[in-house]
Order: sequence, then structure tokens, then C-alpha cells
Amino acid sequence: MYIQVLGSAAGGGFPQWNCNCNNCHGLRQGKLRAAPRTQSSIAISDDGVHWILCNASPDIRSQIEAFPALQPARQKRDTGIAGVILLDSQIDHVTGLLTLREGCPHDVWCTEMVHQDLTSGFPIFNMLAHWNGGLNHQLIQLDGQPFSVPACPALSITAISLRSNAPPYSPRRDDPHPGNNIGLLIEDTRTGKKVFYAPGLGKLDADVLSMMRAADCLLVDGTVWQDDEMQVCGVGTKLGSEMGHLAQSGPGGMLEVLADFPEARRILIHINNTNPILDEDSPERAQVQAAGVEVAYDGMSIQL
Amino acid sequence: MYIQVLGSAAGGGFPQWNCNCNNCHGLRQGKLRAAPRTQSSIAISDDGVHWILCNASPDIRSQIEAFPALQPARQKRDTGIAGVILLDSQIDHVTGLLTLREGCPHDVWCTEMVHQDLTSGFPIFNMLAHWNGGLNHQLIQLDGQPFSVPACPALSITAISLRSNAPPYSPRRDDPHPGNNIGLLIEDTRTGKKVFYAPGLGKLDADVLSMMRAADCLLVDGTVWQDDEMQVCGVGTKLGSEMGHLAQSGPGGMLEVLADFPEARRILIHINNTNPILDEDSPERAQVQAAGVEVAYDGMSIQL
Repeated sequence: MYIQVLGSAAGGGFPQWNCNCNNCHGLRQGKLRAAPRTQSSIAISDDGVHWILCNASPDIRSQIEAFPALQPARQKRDTGIAGVILLDSQIDHVTGLLTLREGCPHDVWCTEMVHQDLTSGFPIFNMLAHWNGGLNHQLIQLDGQPFSVPACPALSITAISLRSNAPPYSPRRDDPHPGNNIGLLIEDTRTGKKVFYAPGLGKLDADVLSMMRAADCLLVDGTVWQDDEMQVCGVGTKLGSEMGHLAQSGPGGMLEVLADFPEARRILIHINNTNPILDEDSPERAQVQAAGVEVAYDGMSIQL
Repeated sequence: MYIQVLGSAAGGGFPQWNCNCNNCHGLRQGKLRAAPRTQSSIAISDDGVHWILCNASPDIRSQIEAFPALQPARQKRDTGIAGVILLDSQIDHVTGLLTLREGCPHDVWCTEMVHQDLTSGFPIFNMLAHWNGGLNHQLIQLDGQPFSVPACPALSITAISLRSNAPPYSPRRDDPHPGNNIGLLIEDTRTGKKVFYAPGLGKLDADVLSMMRAADCLLVDGTVWQDDEMQVCGVGTKLGSEMGHLAQSGPGGMLEVLADFPEARRILIHINNTNPILDEDSPERAQVQAAGVEVAYDGMSIQL
């Protein structure tokens, strides 16, 4: 199976338009060894021709142009995107659907909770119904049963509910339900190889850890290095944990969790612009590398 | 006054993600002398420090990074954007507001019709109310009286209603009202210099022509070269006129109209990916140049 990282940053991207933290300012000034990153999204495929988009970021236009496989040019209007899976209904994970309107209809897999948000607070499904068939909702059940996307029949996909809040715009904000946010275990049934993908992962329950143990590759939440990072950087007051993200450092942090999976390829994704691991010369980045953990970047290609 | 072209393409940009017309394919293959273009938006300023965004395109993140004046870096979180004016409620002109959410509150000037769309079919105002004060609606009246944006007090702005349909997602689609789409006459009151800005201009009534006669610079609809261009290029069935755009060529076309304003600087903007004038070696581009008309590009700076 093919996994392409289209965007590796958290919401806002790197640099973020209104931010002058050490990372964002340093990158703009050319004083930091770091790569700019667009907002989090990956594409997966069983043949390298038909691709399933996991999340549709606001940066989707530049992401598609940066990955030629998504434009096979077989006819006047064409795309390699053969389906979309949404892991949550956050603005930075769904807004890109509006950019795909010229290519409607699209099949979109998401939970009932995400579909509710996208037909109420941010009614993308309703809006795009006015473009040539719009979006066809394909329900993701949380019953532990795998589903597949017709264009990539060799991939068997199992969703797991992750503890998380609905987005700020949601009528269900602060009333958490299963399905607000999910992780995916994607198996190539030809080889048995599996990747676990969860760009938002705040709390690792036993069932999440169990799913992670099955995976050959873990592509997980790399948002913040420390829980109070926004405060330390002077750009905000919210804790990582309040936003549904487990910090990498410290006791119980993501690096400690990932140490229990030495056999798997372990990659951090959805990295916030404030995170010191973006600076390739930082001690924090060195610590991640020493732990055998990789940092995703835009354009990263993974084959399993 | 300063005018910065942030994006010069019509909706979809150039190249458009799913398009393989001669222009889009040629650009990707490097076989066309043409510059890629993001979706239409300009920024105006009376001092080069405080900027008013006219339309907020989905490409806003890359547009801001490409124009350093929009990030003055005076503090940890900062922006040069001191207000937003919306000319219509089309997806390619308003979606960028969602990207600006980390910098809320913002003052947003628009007509009652646009505000209705953005509180119903595409409820951006409602959504962003959950981000630190959200968007403050400042009403644009269509009474011919100028208004100003406090951050740029030297600019006097007059809106004119243009004949146009509401967007496909709007509850008011196919029920045209004044204010669905406007043009702007922006005057620098220190010099008396004026620019007329209308990226969507389907029909030039006497009052529009009268306003154009007052301007030193015309920054107008350059969407399509010919009315049936989408059909000719094999990428669609809609006529330019059905989408509210006057074609450049032929009798009564934009080039003929602009010939009546020889004293003004005349610039085409909001150029569709199918338009042959994007190819700098095309006979159509030569014809535009021979007529003394310019073609806007991303990063174009105009001083009046």
C-alpha cells in the first residue's frame, strides 16, 4: 500500500499566517533549518493510481499540485482522488471539500457525528448538493467492522472512536459523542501490512493501544512537544490536552508511549507551528530521532 | 494608494486541480509560457502598513506568505490585515475567512445580501462567532454614499450594485437582488486618484460606465476570452454570460468597452484557467497587449 503525506502540519500550517513564534518567524527569516508544512492530510492507495484522501485540508489545492499522481491527466477533467475519508469535522480537516466542488460528485466516508456537523454548523454537504450530485455520504460505523472504498478494494479500513470534543462551531460542542474523532487502522489485505493513522490523539485507551499493537506503521498525533507549549511560546492559553492532543515529552507522553512499539515504524504528523521538533537543529528533534521516531514532512512517501 | 494583487485567477485557480485543458496541462508540463495564479483577491492600503483585503480566497494562506507586508511581525501574533471587504458571497471569494479564524475578531464589510448568504447557506459569520469575537459585520449600503475603513482613513470607498446571481449554495439562487455582487470605486482622498475594482462584471449599465469614467485605473473582470470558452475547451457547458462574466473578445466585449477609456490604466483580473490570454505567446494575449490592456498576475503591485 502507498501512503502519501500531503500535509504534515496542524491547523494553521507552518508558518501560520498570523504567528511570529520562534519557529514561524525563524522560518520566514531563513534563520531556522526547517521545512514549511501545509495542513494535515494524507492520501492512501492500493495501486498508486486510485487514491483515498484522508481529510481535506484548506491547503488542498497546493497539495494536489505538489503530488502529480493526483492528476493523471487521462481526460480533460480528471483526478486521482477516488474517495474521501474524514476523521473529524474540524475546519482544517474538511474545508478542502469546497475546493473539490468542480469535481462533484464525491463519495465521502464519515461518522454520523461528523455528518451531523457538516449538515448543520458547517453545512458542506448541503452546500455542495448544488454542484453536480455533490457529496455522497458513506456512513462509518463504530462497530469494529472493517469497511472498504470501492476504488481501493485491497484496503480494509477499521475505524476506532477517539475521545474528543466536537469543533467550536458545532451545535454539539462540549457534549462529546463517540465518532467526533476517529483513528483508522488500514490493512493491505494482499500483504497483511497495516498502518494506524490518528492525527488527533489525546488519550490512549486500552482499545486504542490494542489497535496500535496490530500496526506495522504508526502515523500519530505530533501536535505539541509539551502540554503548555502555546503558553510557553506566548501565543495562546490553551493546553494541548484541552485541544485533544497528547504531548510528546514527559511522563506518559507520546514518545514514552511509542517506546512500547519498537517493531513498528513510528511517525509524528499534525505538527503545530510552535513545536520545537520542527527545528531540525533543536535538542527536542534530536531526542525524537534518538527514540527512533520520525517527523512527517509534506511529500513524504511511505510504502508498506 | 497601494493596490496589491494577491490572486489573479478565477475560481479554481490556475492550474485548476481537476483540469487538463490546454492551459492547465501545458502549465504542468512546462510547455506553456504562463505563470500559475491563485484565486482572485486584492489588498489595498493608504500607507502600505494597514491593508484592507478585498475578498478572502481559499488560497489566502499562501497569498499572505507571498506578500510580506501582510505579516509585519510587531508582536507574537500579528497581521497587516486591518479589515475585509467582500464583493460577493461566492465560495472562491469568502472561504479564506475560515483561515483567518486564529486572528478573530475581524471587521467585515459586505452588503445585506452577502451577509444573508454567509449567515444561512454558508454560515461563516455564525461559525466564527465561536472564535474570539468572530466577524463584525459592517453593512455596505447601496445608496451611492462612500464609506471608509478606519484603518485606512484616506480611502473613500463607494459600492455599486452589479447584476448577478447569488451563488449556487444560496437560498436566494435564481432570485437576483441588488447587492449579490458589487463593484468598488476606491478614491485616495489625498490625491483624488481612483481605482475601479470589479472582478465579476457581466453587464455594464450606464451607472457602471459612469463610475468607470471617474477612475484612473480599471481592474476588471477578465474571466473568459469568449462566451462559449468552457464548451470550446471541452471542460464545461456554461456560458461566461450565464456565470455573470462579459467575455473580452468580439462585439460589445470587454476589450471594446475598455477602448472607450484610453486615459485609464486598464487591467484584467479574475482570469479563468481556460482563457487563452494566460498563454503569454498566444495571439489573444498579443491582442490584449495591442489594445493597451494589462493582464494581472499574482504579486502585481499598483500605486496610484
